[in-house]
Amino acid sequence: MGLKGGPTQDEVMAVSLFKLRINEGDVMADIGCGTGKISIQASERCSRVYAIDRRAEAVEYAKKAIETAEKNNITLIHGEAGNVLDDIDELNCAFVGGSGNIETVLEKLAEIVRGRIVVNAVLLDTVSRTVRTMKELGIFVEALHIQVSRSHELVGDIMFQPINPVYIIVGEVKQ
Amino acid sequence: MGLKGGPTQDEVMAVSLFKLRINEGDVMADIGCGTGKISIQASERCSRVYAIDRRAEAVEYAKKAIETAEKNNITLIHGEAGNVLDDIDELNCAFVGGSGNIETVLEKLAEIVRGRIVVNAVLLDTVSRTVRTMKELGIFVEALHIQVSRSHELVGDIMFQPINPVYIIVGEVKQ
Amino acid sequence: MGLKGGPTQDEVMAVSLFKLRINEGDVMADIGCGTGKISIQASERCSRVYAIDRRAEAVEYAKKAIETAEKNNITLIHGEAGNVLDDIDELNCAFVGGSGNIETVLEKLAEIVRGRIVVNAVLLDTVSRTVRTMKELGIFVEALHIQVSRSHELVGDIMFQPINPVYIIVGEVKQ
Amino acid sequence: MGLKGGPTQDEVMAVSLFKLRINEGDVMADIGCGTGKISIQASERCSRVYAIDRRAEAVEYAKKAIETAEKNNITLIHGEAGNVLDDIDELNCAFVGGSGNIETVLEKLAEIVRGRIVVNAVLLDTVSRTVRTMKELGIFVEALHIQVSRSHELVGDIMFQPINPVYIIVGEVKQ
Repeated sequence: MGLKGGPTQDEVMAVSLFKLRINEGDVMADIGCGTGKISIQASERCSRVYAIDRRAEAVEYAKKAIETAEKNNITLIHGEAGNVLDDIDELNCAFVGGSGNIETVLEKLAEIVRGRIVVNAVLLDTVSRTVRTMKELGIFVEALHIQVSRSHELVGDIMFQPINPVYIIVGEVKQ
Repeated sequence: MGLKGGPTQDEVMAVSLFKLRINEGDVMADIGCGTGKISIQASERCSRVYAIDRRAEAVEYAKKAIETAEKNNITLIHGEAGNVLDDIDELNCAFVGGSGNIETVLEKLAEIVRGRIVVNAVLLDTVSRTVRTMKELGIFVEALHIQVSRSHELVGDIMFQPINPVYIIVGEVKQ
Repeated sequence: MGLKGGPTQDEVMAVSLFKLRINEGDVMADIGCGTGKISIQASERCSRVYAIDRRAEAVEYAKKAIETAEKNNITLIHGEAGNVLDDIDELNCAFVGGSGNIETVLEKLAEIVRGRIVVNAVLLDTVSRTVRTMKELGIFVEALHIQVSRSHELVGDIMFQPINPVYIIVGEVKQ
Repeated sequence: MGLKGGPTQDEVMAVSLFKLRINEGDVMADIGCGTGKISIQASERCSRVYAIDRRAEAVEYAKKAIETAEKNNITLIHGEAGNVLDDIDELNCAFVGGSGNIETVLEKLAEIVRGRIVVNAVLLDTVSRTVRTMKELGIFVEALHIQVSRSHELVGDIMFQPINPVYIIVGEVKQ
């Protein structure tokens, strides 16, 4: 969910990237890239990452993060994913961390991606619509509900405090 | 965990009281009564509730809450549960929401309770020690891990935000 | 979800009944009553419970359970909730554990209930539709996601095994 | 927990490997390697993985899995981790999926690892002892509780079914 909800939490990112099944040299799109965290991590294995966000402040933020991380294989694009994707011919995988119109984005991704599409969502209706659209497109694989709690020190012992649960919805376009 | 951690959350209270299997007219102890929330709820069915806390500020807080709720069958006691329990002959059930020395409290409760003992804990080592002590006393029934998330409105949709997970450890002294 | 999914788990029932805010003497409907477990538990406080299920095998099962529990204040009705509710003038609360058409049922309940309506759901789309319908009817209070794990003995220690997570959606019709 | 509990679930593996912070070329130990799943995955980045298990049937199973995966940089060792580790001079990281004596293993790992140590545990007392031992050794970083539910198709909709929650305990020996 980008800047608004802060960067994707490490554990959710780890599971999301695992489900993306990125191969060495893959070309990926990161839609609603927010802080750029996912793009930067994915760029370790990808040959090219298109980091897309329609919010100027996200692009500004991601720009600095990408520079700091010294990543040269991330193309940062300011714009609506629906429009930006028209200019991309082919992708090996795509991560959607935030999007204005999930249906439109998924339809376009289904055309140009040959591989996995992973959506992170926290809004109930978005989860429901993502699953429905993926099913209609014939690309639905599975949905996950991830609940992580982290230890915090308290009086010499530890207790667990939860981070927000996230739904990870996985699709796949067969090659 | 009393005042420090705030009152027991509704959902955790509902499960804890269900597991206590309170019968109409039962006599119960609420150890580490904190705000008095559990005592007040339990007093609907119990004939008498002993609400015990060693912290003066908890007793002060619970006193007002009990008065506001107009409950006459709650005996509020300021003191260490280990000592206070020496003066109680018999209980039908006991809830432990917080305690300095869980082993001592459980040993005393095992002697005077004839029925269920339910402990709420969030500290890992306390959970482990509670289970171990209940097993040594031959009263362990089960432990539960409860994770509740509640809806919050966001951009016309809802998302779920978690409350702290709680361990509910259940013991039973056979009659 | 009735017989198909087995009876409502104790912890989910405890939270659901707590959220129903049943007062002594209330009249309640239990829609998709399945095994009758919720009806039997609620009948302790209610003056009358209408237990409704469209499945003959559920009604048969619930009939025996109600007889065994010796409850005289449960009216068991075999039929579609949408139709059955037409014959009921007023309810203080309603629990929906399963339903063919959640929108129709909620619309009818919104007319005759003066108090809480609690829906248990496990299907994603049903959750989404329940929240949306309650919002349209102006009766939505909150949705909960409940994840309970129970201890199991293993090599002298305990581990936790989860039961299926359940969404509890709460509505309220103001008096 | 090796063969007994089946292979580590994908999502738990993804988080565990992320927390290990494996760098290209690292040397790692996989203690209680079970089916070899973690070793095979980690061998993608590591220069060498020592896969250790004291159970003959685990070693047999892992042997075949490693051969099928055509991994040449995994050294499979049948023996008690406590003894086997005596023969290893230095490790960049270690994963413990199962172990007879977690205290002994952690003490030895604290000596030879320069980097992350990640333990997966499901037994309550093992979690508690792992945290305590890591704290005593001054290497405790954090503990996580991971609860994953996966979608299953039901009557044209999806519901979520949980896999067993796992504790991931993370330690780090500073270089």
